[in-house]
Amino acid sequence: MAEATVADAAVDPTALFEFLLRMGDNTLILGHRLSEWCGHAPALEEDIALANTALDLIGQTQLWLGLAGAVEGKGRSADDLAFLRDACEFRNLLLNERPNGDFGKTLMRQFLFDAWHHLFLNALRLSSDTRIAEIAGKASKEVSYHLERSRDLVIRLGDGTAESHGRMQGALDDLWPYTGEMFMNEASDAVLAAAGVAPEPAGLKTEWDALVGETLSEATLKEPAEGYMQKGGKRGIHTEHLGYILADMQFLQRAYPGATW
Amino acid sequence: MAEATVADAAVDPTALFEFLLRMGDNTLILGHRLSEWCGHAPALEEDIALANTALDLIGQTQLWLGLAGAVEGKGRSADDLAFLRDACEFRNLLLNERPNGDFGKTLMRQFLFDAWHHLFLNALRLSSDTRIAEIAGKASKEVSYHLERSRDLVIRLGDGTAESHGRMQGALDDLWPYTGEMFMNEASDAVLAAAGVAPEPAGLKTEWDALVGETLSEATLKEPAEGYMQKGGKRGIHTEHLGYILADMQFLQRAYPGATW
Repeated sequence: MAEATVADAAVDPTALFEFLLRMGDNTLILGHRLSEWCGHAPALEEDIALANTALDLIGQTQLWLGLAGAVEGKGRSADDLAFLRDACEFRNLLLNERPNGDFGKTLMRQFLFDAWHHLFLNALRLSSDTRIAEIAGKASKEVSYHLERSRDLVIRLGDGTAESHGRMQGALDDLWPYTGEMFMNEASDAVLAAAGVAPEPAGLKTEWDALVGETLSEATLKEPAEGYMQKGGKRGIHTEHLGYILADMQFLQRAYPGATW
Repeated sequence: MAEATVADAAVDPTALFEFLLRMGDNTLILGHRLSEWCGHAPALEEDIALANTALDLIGQTQLWLGLAGAVEGKGRSADDLAFLRDACEFRNLLLNERPNGDFGKTLMRQFLFDAWHHLFLNALRLSSDTRIAEIAGKASKEVSYHLERSRDLVIRLGDGTAESHGRMQGALDDLWPYTGEMFMNEASDAVLAAAGVAPEPAGLKTEWDALVGETLSEATLKEPAEGYMQKGGKRGIHTEHLGYILADMQFLQRAYPGATW
């Protein structure tokens, strides 16, 4: 699986590596954020659901970062990439490093990401790189369930009590400026799109808008105006939050290098 | 300064090392907690005051842990002890690792510790170990100012508005069970007391009770009943909070071993 096929050989390995880091860092950082809920969610059922989603995302991380390491060809494993890079080398969306906030905010962040993740993985199933198509095929089954669940909860909490509605609207307003980054093309995206490896991010916006708009409407939530959008995560320019995530997440491998269990 | 005097030679170096870790870890962990306020305090003057107190405590840490490393004789520097030990090797009071909470809670924690710190350093100025007496002499000047300041603010906020009074009472009730550990004797304390190196912790309780009781009364705060007291910090059994402090505080030396500036 680590060997390049004829189709892959045509693609700049640096562009491919960056792309794979973006996929794997998105799932790693959001997975870690969700794991912070373990033992703290408002109900046992929700606690388990969040932990399960976290596990799915960490499992996907292993595949994406494993392939990234193989493509890079410097002998770095998925674990090396997860636990031994510093913040400026991470390529996740800023959205995914936002603090958990309350349960509603965590769910809103999850829904906004799931909607993108679902659409993007579906497109990646047709990737000319069979290794990517294979990972996307496996991940998209999990993610369509994540989306079903977060969409359902956004609707129930948005169209719920005055308290839950207010919290969901606040979460949406707060997180909205972090959604634009999902659709910004980087220089390497054109190369990957030309080779049929991955679609350009901007192309997914219409479908995402429709899916999100319809959900928010059903949730009786007011979609914020487009406005200024935050960016930087995909290029390694992160908020202070990522540093604290890494300090926490990487402590064990940093303090006990090479430790296994 | 690293050389042992005749008086020191009589004292078990392990007991002395443990004692010095306790002193240095108390100032290190509380100093780090206070540094978390930098840029976040409710007023510029308070922000600077908290950062200055943090700097005093980190400065004292350098002296205590520097001496600890010399006494241990394994070539560990103050930096090594601060940045390369894991939680179970720390000997600070659980009180000092409590989360900051609001400004009132931070001040109440500070006052409860300052009162002990002030009394204990005063006693250490008469230590038979001249290295300890010297550090205590320097630190006690700083700490008598810390105490003057935290005592004053506890009184002003306690005897303030209904809001500030309520918050200070809440902080006191919450932190009180962490004060008992200051006066618990460990096995090594008898050895140190017999050699005139340091007084036994239990002996300071009467004076601390008087100082704290008088202050709380002036602050119109109700002193909690004695009740169950938390313990463990002095033996390396810590709350989850210390792990997060260390992950954050040690990240740089863990990620970039030996880095200097």
